[in-house]
Amino acid sequence: MRNLTLLTDFYELTMMYGYFLQGKTEETATFDLFFRPFDESNFCIAAGLEQAVDYVQNLRFTKEDIDYLRSTKAFNEPFLKFLSNFKFTGSIKAIPEGTVVFPYEPLMVITAPICQAQLMEAALLNIINFQTLIATKARRITHAASPAGVLEFGLRRAQAPDASIYGARAAVIGGCTSTSNVLCAQMFGMPPKGTHAHSWVMSFPTELDAFMAYAQTYPDGCLLLVDTYDTLHSGVPNAIKVFDYLKQNGHKPLGIRLDSGDLAYLSKEARKMLDAAGHADCQIFASSDIDEYVLMALREQGAKIDTFGVGTKMITSNNTPSLGGVYKLANLCVDGKDVPKMKISDNPVKMTNPGVKTVYRLFGRDTNKAIADVICLADEVIDDTKPLTITHPVERWKSKEVTNFYFKELYIDVFKDGKLVYSCPNVYQLQSDCKQSLNGFWDEYLRLTQPHAYKVDLSDKLYELKQRLISEDKKGGAHAI
Amino acid sequence: MRNLTLLTDFYELTMMYGYFLQGKTEETATFDLFFRPFDESNFCIAAGLEQAVDYVQNLRFTKEDIDYLRSTKAFNEPFLKFLSNFKFTGSIKAIPEGTVVFPYEPLMVITAPICQAQLMEAALLNIINFQTLIATKARRITHAASPAGVLEFGLRRAQAPDASIYGARAAVIGGCTSTSNVLCAQMFGMPPKGTHAHSWVMSFPTELDAFMAYAQTYPDGCLLLVDTYDTLHSGVPNAIKVFDYLKQNGHKPLGIRLDSGDLAYLSKEARKMLDAAGHADCQIFASSDIDEYVLMALREQGAKIDTFGVGTKMITSNNTPSLGGVYKLANLCVDGKDVPKMKISDNPVKMTNPGVKTVYRLFGRDTNKAIADVICLADEVIDDTKPLTITHPVERWKSKEVTNFYFKELYIDVFKDGKLVYSCPNVYQLQSDCKQSLNGFWDEYLRLTQPHAYKVDLSDKLYELKQRLISEDKKGGAHAI
Repeated sequence: MRNLTLLTDFYELTMMYGYFLQGKTEETATFDLFFRPFDESNFCIAAGLEQAVDYVQNLRFTKEDIDYLRSTKAFNEPFLKFLSNFKFTGSIKAIPEGTVVFPYEPLMVITAPICQAQLMEAALLNIINFQTLIATKARRITHAASPAGVLEFGLRRAQAPDASIYGARAAVIGGCTSTSNVLCAQMFGMPPKGTHAHSWVMSFPTELDAFMAYAQTYPDGCLLLVDTYDTLHSGVPNAIKVFDYLKQNGHKPLGIRLDSGDLAYLSKEARKMLDAAGHADCQIFASSDIDEYVLMALREQGAKIDTFGVGTKMITSNNTPSLGGVYKLANLCVDGKDVPKMKISDNPVKMTNPGVKTVYRLFGRDTNKAIADVICLADEVIDDTKPLTITHPVERWKSKEVTNFYFKELYIDVFKDGKLVYSCPNVYQLQSDCKQSLNGFWDEYLRLTQPHAYKVDLSDKLYELKQRLISEDKKGGAHAI
Repeated sequence: MRNLTLLTDFYELTMMYGYFLQGKTEETATFDLFFRPFDESNFCIAAGLEQAVDYVQNLRFTKEDIDYLRSTKAFNEPFLKFLSNFKFTGSIKAIPEGTVVFPYEPLMVITAPICQAQLMEAALLNIINFQTLIATKARRITHAASPAGVLEFGLRRAQAPDASIYGARAAVIGGCTSTSNVLCAQMFGMPPKGTHAHSWVMSFPTELDAFMAYAQTYPDGCLLLVDTYDTLHSGVPNAIKVFDYLKQNGHKPLGIRLDSGDLAYLSKEARKMLDAAGHADCQIFASSDIDEYVLMALREQGAKIDTFGVGTKMITSNNTPSLGGVYKLANLCVDGKDVPKMKISDNPVKMTNPGVKTVYRLFGRDTNKAIADVICLADEVIDDTKPLTITHPVERWKSKEVTNFYFKELYIDVFKDGKLVYSCPNVYQLQSDCKQSLNGFWDEYLRLTQPHAYKVDLSDKLYELKQRLISEDKKGGAHAI
C-alpha cells in the first residue's frame, strides 16, 4: 500500500505545528466534506470511500518523511517527535459509495483531534472529489446509452496513472460494465476489455490479412475494428468474410467496432450489411469522442449500436473537470464542551452549516420514492408517525408537510476511535447499490437536462443555530478588531 | 518504484498475443507519439519524459501479473512465458521536457520489437498527455501573471493523487515557482509553500487571537489569510496590528493572502491600508479560481498582487482537460527492410506522417529567433550554407525561401538498444530550459489569444512519400477486399 501521508498541502502541517505550539492538540474538531452546487448535475454519485479508508489506515510519518520535514526548517524537534508517533485515533462517518448525494450534504464527517483532522483535508478532498466526479459523469453517460452498455476506455487520456485506475473504478460504480485498463481490472476484480487497434491492421499487408490473423488469435468472441481504411467499402466487407470463415469453422464471432466517422449513418449501414450476410447475431461496438449529449443525438437518429466505448470525455469529466468539494470546520470540542463553528461569508453559497450533523432521506410509504432530504443536527430524531414539516434552507416561507413517510439516515460508521469498522463492498456490489439508490428517485429528478429540483432542507434547530451564529458575528464576535 | 506494467489497455496485450502467434515478434516497429491541433494553445510545452523513462525502465511482468493474465483465459502458456522474460530492448528518441512543441511533431519516437512498442502505447500517452497539458497551461498562466509569481495550489482538486504530484511537477516546468503539495515537493526537490486556512482562524475565539497565534508560530515570514470574516473591516486591520507587533519585536512579516471576493478592488484597498500603516514591504498574495483570463482582467484593473496561488483551473487544465495525444505506427522493419506506414483517413486531420522522421527548428542567424520547424525523414540533412525552401504541409503552393539561418534537431537519445542513455535534469533546470525555448520565439507566436501561426512544414521527401502511400492505397492496396 502506498504511503500518502505527505500528500497534503504544506499549510496543513504549518497549522498542525501552530496547534501543537498552542497546546491545542487535545481539542477535537469535526470537519464536513461536502460539495457546493455543481454545474453539470443536480446530484452526484458518492465514490472514493474505499481509497479514503486506505489512505487513513496508512497514515504514518516514516523516518524519511520526518527527515524531509526537518530539512524544511519549518518545525521544531518536539513537533517532529509528535509526528513520528502520529496515527489516526478519531471517528469517521460517511455516505456509502454509490449513493445519490446533493450539494451541502457532508459525504464524510471527520471527528478527531484537530491536528489529525487537519492533516487529512487535502488528500481526502483529492480522493473523494475525483471519484465522485467520475461516478457522476459515468451515471450520466450510462443513463444516456441505456439499454446499450458502456465500457470505460479512458486510460490514455486520463490525468496521470491514478486517474485512469480510480476513474475507471468510479466509472464502473456509476454504471459502466467494465474497463480496458488492465491494472484497474486486476486491482478491482473486473474483466478487462478490448480487441485490436489500427496499428494491428496497418502492420499487415492488407486489412483482410490483419482480420484473418486476429480471428486466428481469438476465433471465439472475435471483434474487428473496421475503420482503418474505409468502413463501408473495406472494413465491413472484410469483416463479413472473416465472420463467414469463422462460422464455417464452428466459431461464434462477436462483432465489429466503429471508431470514427458518422456513427449513426455507419452503424445503420453496417447493421444492414451484417444482417444481409447472415450475421444478425454480430454486435456493433462504437467509440469516438462520446459523451451523454452525443449519445442522445445518436439515439435520436436511430443508430444501431450495442455497446459504446467511452474514453476522454468520461475519464476527465470533460465539461466540468472538477467537483469543487470542500472540507470545513463544523464543531470544536474543547474540554468536553461543543462549540459549533461556521464560515460566515458575504456570498451565501460559501456559508457553511455549523455543528455535528446528519442527513435523513424521506421516502413515501406508498411509492418508495424519495420526497426530500433533511440536514439536521446529529442528535435530532425524526418521528415518522406524525406529519413532518420540512422547510427550504434559505427561503423559509417555502415549506411542505410530509405525511405517510419513512426515512433512512444516509451515514454509516467507517472509523470509531481510530478503529476501522467498515468493510468496502466490491465495485459491482457498489454499482448495484448505485442502481438501487437511483431507483429511489422519480425519473423527473434523474433526467440529464433541466431536471426537477430535489428538496434538501435544513431542520428548524439547525437553521436557528446558523442564524444565532450569524447574528453573534454581526454584533462583532470573532472578527472584532 | 511503482510497477506500472499492467497499466495498459487490454487490446495491447491481445495484439501482442496475436503478433506472438503470427511469429512477428522479431519485426521492429517505429511509433510516433504526437498531438493534433489543440484548442487551447497553438503550441505546447513538452513534459513527462522523466516519468516515461521510469515507466520503461521498470517494465516487467511479475509472477502475480502473469498469474493474473493467466486467469483471464485470453493467452496460452508459451505467450505467458514470453511475457515473463519481457524487457525493453528498443530505442527511444524524444524532444526534451520544457521544449516548445507543435502539433504533429513526434514528442517521442519509439523503435522496438513490435510487442514491446505496442505494450507501451497507453501508459506513455497517459504520462506525456497529462504533463504536457499542464506544463502548457502553466506557461499560459505564468505568462499572464508575470511579473507576479505563481504558486501551484491544486492538490485538492486534481484528478486523483498522481495528477496532483505530476501536475505540480509539470506546472513548475511551465513556470510556477513552487507548489503547496508536500509529497511532490519532497519527490522533486522544491520548497513546499503555504500558510494557514480559514479553519485556523475559525478554531480561535477571534480572528486577532488566530493571527497572533500564527505569528507566534512563524514570527519570520508570517503570511496571514485575511478573508475569513470581512477582508477590509476585520482581516487587514487585524493583520496590521500583528505586523506592527512583529516589527516591534524585530521580525519581518511577509504579508497577507486574499482568497475570495473582488481581488482587484480588495488588493488595491489592502495595499493602501498596508502602505499607510508603514507596511509597504508586506506583499499581497491572492488565490480564488484564477486562470490566465482572470489574470489579464486583474492586470487591466490595476490589481496590486505580488504572488498568485492557482489551483483548480491549472491542475485540471479546466477549459480543455485533455491533450489528445496519439501513438501511431510510422514504420515496420521486416527482415531488415523498412516499410513506411501511415493511417489513411477521410479526415485530413487524422492522416499521419509515414516513416522514421526527425524535426529541425530553423533560427535566424541575426535574430536567434525561430523561423519555422521542418518535419522530415530521419536521414535527410539540411545544408545551412544554402537557401532552403520550406513548404506548407498541405497547401504546397505556400512556400518560403529561408536564408541566413542555422538549425537545431529537436531530439535527444533516451534509450539505445534497451540502455538508458539520458539523465533527466531537475525541475528547475527544466523550467530554465523552458524559458530558453520560449525565448527562441517572437512574442507574436507566444501571446495567449490569436497568436501568429508558426510554420511547421514537411520536407519534399516526406511529402512525396506520403503522397505515394496515399495513391497506392487509392489503387486498392491494404484495404483490398
